[in-house]
Amino acid sequence: MNVLWILAHPEPRSLNGFLAGEGQRALRAEGHEVEVSDLYAMGWNPVVDAAGYGHDPAERFQVAAAAKRGYGSGALSADIRGEQEKIDRADTIVVQFPLWWFGLPAILKGWFDRVWHQGYAYGLRGPGGEWLGYGDGFLAGKRAMAVVTMGGPAWFYGERGIHGSVGELLFPLQHGTLFYAGAEVLPPVLFPGADRFTPEDAGNAAKELRERLLAIPDTEPIPYRKQNGGDYDERFVLRPDVAPGSTGLGAHLITCTTTRGSC
Amino acid sequence: MNVLWILAHPEPRSLNGFLAGEGQRALRAEGHEVEVSDLYAMGWNPVVDAAGYGHDPAERFQVAAAAKRGYGSGALSADIRGEQEKIDRADTIVVQFPLWWFGLPAILKGWFDRVWHQGYAYGLRGPGGEWLGYGDGFLAGKRAMAVVTMGGPAWFYGERGIHGSVGELLFPLQHGTLFYAGAEVLPPVLFPGADRFTPEDAGNAAKELRERLLAIPDTEPIPYRKQNGGDYDERFVLRPDVAPGSTGLGAHLITCTTTRGSC
Repeated sequence: MNVLWILAHPEPRSLNGFLAGEGQRALRAEGHEVEVSDLYAMGWNPVVDAAGYGHDPAERFQVAAAAKRGYGSGALSADIRGEQEKIDRADTIVVQFPLWWFGLPAILKGWFDRVWHQGYAYGLRGPGGEWLGYGDGFLAGKRAMAVVTMGGPAWFYGERGIHGSVGELLFPLQHGTLFYAGAEVLPPVLFPGADRFTPEDAGNAAKELRERLLAIPDTEPIPYRKQNGGDYDERFVLRPDVAPGSTGLGAHLITCTTTRGSC
Repeated sequence: MNVLWILAHPEPRSLNGFLAGEGQRALRAEGHEVEVSDLYAMGWNPVVDAAGYGHDPAERFQVAAAAKRGYGSGALSADIRGEQEKIDRADTIVVQFPLWWFGLPAILKGWFDRVWHQGYAYGLRGPGGEWLGYGDGFLAGKRAMAVVTMGGPAWFYGERGIHGSVGELLFPLQHGTLFYAGAEVLPPVLFPGADRFTPEDAGNAAKELRERLLAIPDTEPIPYRKQNGGDYDERFVLRPDVAPGSTGLGAHLITCTTTRGSC
């Protein structure tokens, strides 16, 4: 594998720092290439602005259009281009972060906001000019996997836990961002209860992470429905006969076939 | 009302800039106080770091603990303190943003990451030392409302639309962040199809926004279940008799009483 590993944690001496080191070492020991974007160490700028896309600030800044234009004309800033070159070299993307406010730390959210733009990760393509996304995005052929530490215990994030099910909390990242761009998204590696980890817990976590990383080529992706797979109508709404009556985020999984109820 | 209006858009000449101006003007015309945090105009730093909490970088940086300690000792950076003082003065918080990658722009995510920390927005309180959150957080008594523009048409974000239902996409913000801190969260003001708005569409949007803003005191909040309202067991998992069989994010709404199916 050629792995791009995106890490978003401010403290190298953290559980996240430890797991990143262990995971990257395990991959390299098996002969895989690993390139790392340690966003804190890089001082990554997460704020979308006109400068990143070479947009003239005297003109009204329409983000998606400006990004696409800047990409097409080679006007992207060096930091955005550098990340895109790393993505292009990779066949596998690992996204590692602590779950903050049930989502990505800002520095990581802004990596996607800036790098993963229209024209590069998704959009119109081909002579027919069809819109590519959800399984058919520009990054098709890559695999992606999230590695997530969470402060609370696992049952807070269970399917009836108070925080909401972690699979649904990660839907904007896994479905809306990674799968949208065409990646095959593997089930996440989750470490709940991370704020009370003992050294033994950390060792067990590292072992689980190493196993999950080395198994990436053989792991079944999350079975999200493809945009053009026949499950959505021409308005990209689930056809009435697909998981009829189901309305939650889980309905976008191929495995959701219930005639009533949540998936 | 004393309104704190958080705005996260890079372009004042955008639809978001227009709506912010119209909404704030309408509130002031009716005698309400409006304080604005225009995050782009302020050059807000969205990246959690040791400096924000006066944490000694020689010591391992454990984010939640460092934030709580920095808050208690008065060591928070001036920018974080300034935002907390604005929140303290407000009884109503408006959070306005374009939906980017089905979540908050990084600059806004990092406003919550940095400002909305343990010890200030949620955590242990009182002699009994109970953990406050989900309707009982430290910001109880305030109302909050999201104002969101979305690029795609409304049906993409419907309950069976390909992006997932917007209410569930906003769950991390509305339930996990605002309600967690104790705010009563009003139904969001949503503007789908924003990237193709005509001037007439924008005028209609401004009218709807003005009406929603002035109706804040009389609007029913989203009926999320309270942590200590009797619906969760001692592990904060929904009791078996509450919305039995329901597993989606919608199960955390009091209105979800189905014996099977998604809510």
